[in-house]
Amino acid sequence: MTATLFEAGQPLTLARGGRLDQVDVAYETYGRLSPAKDNAIFVCHALTGDAHAAGCHAGERKPGWWDNLIGPGKPIDTDVFFVICPNLLGGCQGTTGPSSLDPATGRCYGLDFPVLDMADFVTVHRRLLSYLGVRRLLAVVGGSLGGMQVLQWLLDYPEDMASACLIAASSRLTAQNIAFSAVAREAIMRDPGFHDGHYRETGDSPDVGLAIARMMAHITYLSEEALARKFGREPQTAQTDGQPPGFGADFAVESYLRHQGEVFLDRFDALSYLYLSRVMDYFDPFARPGAAEAAGRVRPSVLVSSFSSDWRFGADHSRRIVSRLERAGVPVSYRDIPSALGHDSFLLPIPRYLDTVRAFLSQALRQVRR
Amino acid sequence: MTATLFEAGQPLTLARGGRLDQVDVAYETYGRLSPAKDNAIFVCHALTGDAHAAGCHAGERKPGWWDNLIGPGKPIDTDVFFVICPNLLGGCQGTTGPSSLDPATGRCYGLDFPVLDMADFVTVHRRLLSYLGVRRLLAVVGGSLGGMQVLQWLLDYPEDMASACLIAASSRLTAQNIAFSAVAREAIMRDPGFHDGHYRETGDSPDVGLAIARMMAHITYLSEEALARKFGREPQTAQTDGQPPGFGADFAVESYLRHQGEVFLDRFDALSYLYLSRVMDYFDPFARPGAAEAAGRVRPSVLVSSFSSDWRFGADHSRRIVSRLERAGVPVSYRDIPSALGHDSFLLPIPRYLDTVRAFLSQALRQVRR
Repeated sequence: MTATLFEAGQPLTLARGGRLDQVDVAYETYGRLSPAKDNAIFVCHALTGDAHAAGCHAGERKPGWWDNLIGPGKPIDTDVFFVICPNLLGGCQGTTGPSSLDPATGRCYGLDFPVLDMADFVTVHRRLLSYLGVRRLLAVVGGSLGGMQVLQWLLDYPEDMASACLIAASSRLTAQNIAFSAVAREAIMRDPGFHDGHYRETGDSPDVGLAIARMMAHITYLSEEALARKFGREPQTAQTDGQPPGFGADFAVESYLRHQGEVFLDRFDALSYLYLSRVMDYFDPFARPGAAEAAGRVRPSVLVSSFSSDWRFGADHSRRIVSRLERAGVPVSYRDIPSALGHDSFLLPIPRYLDTVRAFLSQALRQVRR
Repeated sequence: MTATLFEAGQPLTLARGGRLDQVDVAYETYGRLSPAKDNAIFVCHALTGDAHAAGCHAGERKPGWWDNLIGPGKPIDTDVFFVICPNLLGGCQGTTGPSSLDPATGRCYGLDFPVLDMADFVTVHRRLLSYLGVRRLLAVVGGSLGGMQVLQWLLDYPEDMASACLIAASSRLTAQNIAFSAVAREAIMRDPGFHDGHYRETGDSPDVGLAIARMMAHITYLSEEALARKFGREPQTAQTDGQPPGFGADFAVESYLRHQGEVFLDRFDALSYLYLSRVMDYFDPFARPGAAEAAGRVRPSVLVSSFSSDWRFGADHSRRIVSRLERAGVPVSYRDIPSALGHDSFLLPIPRYLDTVRAFLSQALRQVRR
């Protein structure tokens, strides 16, 4: 479904000073809101996610991106909870973003789209809640960039939620994190198909740059061990890519990455990649003095979880969040889940991870109904 | 200096079946060969190195790439040793490579240049030794790809050397190592300026792809901690890159990477990047049964050294080399040098590292003169 949440007369004013006269938000919901409206869980997606978090759309065989966690009997149990998942502001799967039409000009925003901030995501998410008639959430849940949004929301409006669940998230990117995103953006913006961000009008698109960005990012989503287990040094036997000998996808891992780059083009937009990755770079909510004071007063219960082999947003990132929240008096539980699968673990059916999320949300529901 | 080491009538036959009718090799030497010819050290450079390992050329302020190790009084002491450093076959700094002119066609080889193997480097290195009148080396020394060449040489012709020094090297790339190189090659080959490898004739060049490749590789040469110490999240204050707000080099680390990408274009060639990185991918000398038998008979003394924060060719890679050599009876000494600076440590003046190399080479000289 899509809702127009901001429009001319009541525009969205952005944290960094810009303004959007129309904001449409695509979202999905799963399960049913209870009569007491006490079972709503808000799911925030990661950098390249979308509103389709669970189940299969008619005619599709691939389920939503968090189908391992969301569904009947699953940790985010849709027989029990009412789950809301919107596509992010700045995204490209139904919510207004830089490749949307600017109503003022009739052409795509491109780089005229205003620079976004994590707080803008929260503003839009809260408006969606009002629109859906939900006043308070049982939990706000997200992984990676999604977990960063959860943190922003928790700090700014802790009264909105009984609990919060931050998985493989960060409160502040490192220089290395920023560096990888910088190279990805460079690949996109220097692709001749980028046309200064107005590629939609040209029929061209920065496909090479976006594929390169995705391939590189994909390496960082997996642990070295995961890649070794999955591919090792296996040759790619069915080589049909027409490349000269020695410079095609000679190894299985090369073929896999190339495929990841290609399929990404069908579902993601280069401008969204720029805007959303930049929001992550700038995110640093604890830099504001007293950032966690309100959360320390309201005291929603918080679960922070990392994965042992995640070298993108690993335990160091989660521990920093935990210590800042603890210092402010927020009740926070922390798990570093053993997993060999790297950052992508947050998407995968790892039993200890699923158990942890299940237990946390069940406890949250018991507490609000106590 | 440049020497023509192979020419029509006595061509270079390559390990993977190709042939080169003319091979010129650029090289530098430092220090003097002793009357007994027992003090020669052969230096193998890394992926993007060249023959200019030490000192400053007239009019230049930047010394050679291993000036921290090579020079009067330095660990590779040019008052004591005679040092030879050639540019690699397939390179682009004076030695024949894929951007050289093919004498058969009068135009650049491009992707018609034959696929290379680590053994080809050794063949050319040995021919250079004959040319220079050096029969036996006191030591063969190299870091990263250079260390991999040392290993190939040690396994194939251990009688050529009294000792070998392998620094931050690998005997077999992991899937993650290959993956990073694969994305780099993809960025180069899919750059419209690549023209199927014949860019020299067009006046165009795959500058964007090569810069992206370098930027990405550069991240992997540094540890996360090195990047954090050097740049943290510092904003780039003097922003003059003309990029739209929010999408330029906003952070210092971005500006640094962009600079690394740009200056690389002046000194390196995209085709060499493809050919040399591919040699690394395929390198797996211990896959051959009995690979280290000859070295176990001849028993040159070997130093293997890694750096604690190197996540490209770290301790695991070195330990594999050590255990394979030990099993074959090669006398091998191993050091994992504490360093926060990542893979690039092998280029840097880290006291414990310099001391280790100095002690090893002094001991090697004492032994041959005993």
